[in-house]
Amino acid sequence: MPFDLDLSIEILRRSPATLRALLDGLGEPLVRATEGPETFSPFDVVGHLIDGEETDWIPRARIILARGPNVRFEPYDRFRHRARNSGRSLESLLAEFARLRATNLDLLCSWKLTVRELDLPGEHPSLGPVTLRQLLAAWVVHDLGHLAQIARVMAKQYGDEIGPWVAFLPVLTDHPVPRS
Amino acid sequence: MPFDLDLSIEILRRSPATLRALLDGLGEPLVRATEGPETFSPFDVVGHLIDGEETDWIPRARIILARGPNVRFEPYDRFRHRARNSGRSLESLLAEFARLRATNLDLLCSWKLTVRELDLPGEHPSLGPVTLRQLLAAWVVHDLGHLAQIARVMAKQYGDEIGPWVAFLPVLTDHPVPRS
Repeated sequence: MPFDLDLSIEILRRSPATLRALLDGLGEPLVRATEGPETFSPFDVVGHLIDGEETDWIPRARIILARGPNVRFEPYDRFRHRARNSGRSLESLLAEFARLRATNLDLLCSWKLTVRELDLPGEHPSLGPVTLRQLLAAWVVHDLGHLAQIARVMAKQYGDEIGPWVAFLPVLTDHPVPRS
Repeated sequence: MPFDLDLSIEILRRSPATLRALLDGLGEPLVRATEGPETFSPFDVVGHLIDGEETDWIPRARIILARGPNVRFEPYDRFRHRARNSGRSLESLLAEFARLRATNLDLLCSWKLTVRELDLPGEHPSLGPVTLRQLLAAWVVHDLGHLAQIARVMAKQYGDEIGPWVAFLPVLTDHPVPRS
């Protein structure tokens, strides 16, 4: 499917409500459950998405649109949320994510990006040359990948409770070593 | 995490609203997108979940709870939804799923299942002996696995649009041959 700015915004706009429907009010054991050491819980994922709103997607789009001599992005800290959100509730993270996302999408809409602007270059600190279009497409895929991750992490908590059904429920075994 | 009936019901109750937030009103190209031949689109998944409400989880729980001489389940048709929902809109499927799920969970709650009843046996037509507890746990995992699948299918539609970010977005490459 070719990149479509309006569709991308429509998908990005849904994430806060989707995460609220899935997570808001769930008990701590499930909200804090992981797939093993050094993997993200649903709580961590929402914190990571907030980090993306504050330090990744829109800040990087601004660097590209500034068209300065240096279009290299700041490195992104995948673990910024850990210290930042210590002691917070999931409810407050969900509300913060919804606010930040709405503000960022309003800003993105206000830019009225042209096809030419979507082709503008940036430089990822480890991946190299990218375009604004690729940055925005990656934002969409990143949201959906983390939604899939949350569902998978939740599912895995019942990995020992389903008996022989494990053969029919690949969500439990497709990621023996999670990469997201 | 040990099986918990109340928590299971709470997770199952969220699925219709989660799917609505994610999908309701999205355009047909994305709603009907797949991961390749013979794989499910988001539309197909919602149809498959409806089939589960009508022919899988609660009907099988009834067989177990009847404690008859034959506790073997009817085989489940993974493709029942294809002919059944031809010509339907996603909106009508989402509404139907929400109705069926609410009715089924009200019924499940009304049973006030005891620990002893959760241990009652059934027989899966291909997997063999199972318990009511395992059936209900599998229902939860099945929901979450299909939510992960929908997010993955949606993400993959931008697989050619993200350039080098593919290295950081495992949702695009973790399932070269999808099993759900």
